[in-house]
Amino acid sequence: MSKKKKSSIHEKEGVSISEITNATSIKSIKDKRKAEIDVDALITSILKKDVTALSRAITLIESKNAKHKNIADTILKRCLPHANKSIRIGITGVPGVGKSTFIEAFGKHLTSLQKRVAVLAIDPSSTITKGSILGDKTRMEDLVKDENAFIRPSASGNSLGGVARKTRETIILCEAAGFDVIIIETVGVGQSETTVHSMVDFFLLLKLAGAGDELQGIKRGIIEMADTIAINKADGDNLKQAKLAKVEFNRALHLYPEKSSNWQPKVTLCSALKNEGIDAIWEIILEYIEVTTKNNFFSQKRHEQNKFWLIQTIEDQLKSDFFNTPKIKKELALQIQLIENNQISPFAAADYLLKLKI
Amino acid sequence: MSKKKKSSIHEKEGVSISEITNATSIKSIKDKRKAEIDVDALITSILKKDVTALSRAITLIESKNAKHKNIADTILKRCLPHANKSIRIGITGVPGVGKSTFIEAFGKHLTSLQKRVAVLAIDPSSTITKGSILGDKTRMEDLVKDENAFIRPSASGNSLGGVARKTRETIILCEAAGFDVIIIETVGVGQSETTVHSMVDFFLLLKLAGAGDELQGIKRGIIEMADTIAINKADGDNLKQAKLAKVEFNRALHLYPEKSSNWQPKVTLCSALKNEGIDAIWEIILEYIEVTTKNNFFSQKRHEQNKFWLIQTIEDQLKSDFFNTPKIKKELALQIQLIENNQISPFAAADYLLKLKI
Repeated sequence: MSKKKKSSIHEKEGVSISEITNATSIKSIKDKRKAEIDVDALITSILKKDVTALSRAITLIESKNAKHKNIADTILKRCLPHANKSIRIGITGVPGVGKSTFIEAFGKHLTSLQKRVAVLAIDPSSTITKGSILGDKTRMEDLVKDENAFIRPSASGNSLGGVARKTRETIILCEAAGFDVIIIETVGVGQSETTVHSMVDFFLLLKLAGAGDELQGIKRGIIEMADTIAINKADGDNLKQAKLAKVEFNRALHLYPEKSSNWQPKVTLCSALKNEGIDAIWEIILEYIEVTTKNNFFSQKRHEQNKFWLIQTIEDQLKSDFFNTPKIKKELALQIQLIENNQISPFAAADYLLKLKI
Repeated sequence: MSKKKKSSIHEKEGVSISEITNATSIKSIKDKRKAEIDVDALITSILKKDVTALSRAITLIESKNAKHKNIADTILKRCLPHANKSIRIGITGVPGVGKSTFIEAFGKHLTSLQKRVAVLAIDPSSTITKGSILGDKTRMEDLVKDENAFIRPSASGNSLGGVARKTRETIILCEAAGFDVIIIETVGVGQSETTVHSMVDFFLLLKLAGAGDELQGIKRGIIEMADTIAINKADGDNLKQAKLAKVEFNRALHLYPEKSSNWQPKVTLCSALKNEGIDAIWEIILEYIEVTTKNNFFSQKRHEQNKFWLIQTIEDQLKSDFFNTPKIKKELALQIQLIENNQISPFAAADYLLKLKI
């Protein structure tokens, strides 16, 4: 027990270390690390549910050092046969919806059921700034201290694809380390929901009951992806509005064609702050798992997701290889100019650029 | 006048010729054609609004013969400075909604206003079969005979991208031939709406008032793309239901975020069969053009569409070059198998395949 607590503290240190690596003292830390890495021992420890080892392996995945990438690939390969056994849950909602409070309450509920819970994040802003969500673990004070919980802030990266890959690989490690539930948090910005949606089994959308039309301002497509919508802060004076919102959302959900999972998305009320309705959401998820396991959608979806990531990674790389060639970059700008002046069609310009590459 | 009528008949022959090219007598026709092609004369005739020349140029675009492609590219390049002056309208709706009747009534209304109208089609099924829409011009009997109308069935091709390219290039030729309005018809299947949407200025969705919930069964995303929804067959006993459907659709449209065009999509009733409400739709389109020309969205959208086609064509080609390499095809199947057996992660498999290519 005390060992686990220690590792939880270590994980906190891990975060500050990864911050330091952006500073001037990178070399000395790297030298230290390199000397320390014993891949076999690390893997053995991960499989023994040691979160200190898990943290170190994740740091290797996130590292930009080419040597670390090789080690990370080895670790991943050997962890893979032990992965795939968790329930992966995506949680999204706009800032202010109470995601941290919800995840804390939900996570605590799960650990009270003897489940081990890992909380990861995909923060689209991490490609621009240092990231804003889950960077500060103090937002989940209780869960951080829980020996059966593991919280890791969003990886940073130059592209959403890069961040997604690191997170997807972190899921593998967490599963190898025996976590039963993996929660992946994101915010309602840009493409991040689609990214999270394509790596989880169940997608939960958190909403608030507000004034006016509840459906206004919902980002295109998010409702379609939700397996369940939970209206948070459904307490006190908010309760009446929340109930109305529930009716509205149910109406909206029925406008969409049936999902191939045969699952009819649900709308539910909760108050993360008062710890109300949290258990019901877990029950819904268990029901979902049951339904989709029976009709084989669950494993089919995971296969599809794997194929998606395979193809997506290849396509992203092909595009980036092409468009980042200096010659193409320069010529592309010229061709766009010619197109705007009606001197060349987009197709002829494409043919021209493709021939340049060869 | 009689010349125009003749060309309309010739266009009919053009269709049967393109059908013949799939048969055994290809060579003799090709030889004949090759001898006939005088590019300068053809371009001059197109710019003089000669639809016979236009038809021949479109046939060259659609040809799979490499020599024809070179000629077609030259023609396109020289027609481009004369293009871009029409209003491009996309029309979609499920089979049975009355698209042909609508386009006939709408087209006749435009020609009665002295507008020259070209009707093209993107038929997703043309990549599989010979295509089903607009293959039979007898469905638009009156419009076919109209000297100010030009109707061309969907190009066929191995991919939607290929069909789209041919159609997009045909638009250029039609515009150079002085057509004021280009209508592009498609059916509510697969990706064809998105394709048409990305090459038109205005997107019209035809719907029917039916029994039950009007919004059921609407394909995801199509409502979002519509600049106007016209509920067809709003006559006789249908009228009451059509009016109810109008309310429903208006409600649905307001659920979506405002478009960047600042245009609030409209819902309108019409009866193509009784020629009612057709003029109103043209008025709506003119209003749209006015609004979006004023706020510069109109030309901005065309620029964006051109860039989209440029990038899309390049990306499609990069992917097809990669995934159609026999070695990759074989290895891809193996890697997918390894992924399903948890022996490799999708990312490691992607890295492996990408290295093979180099």
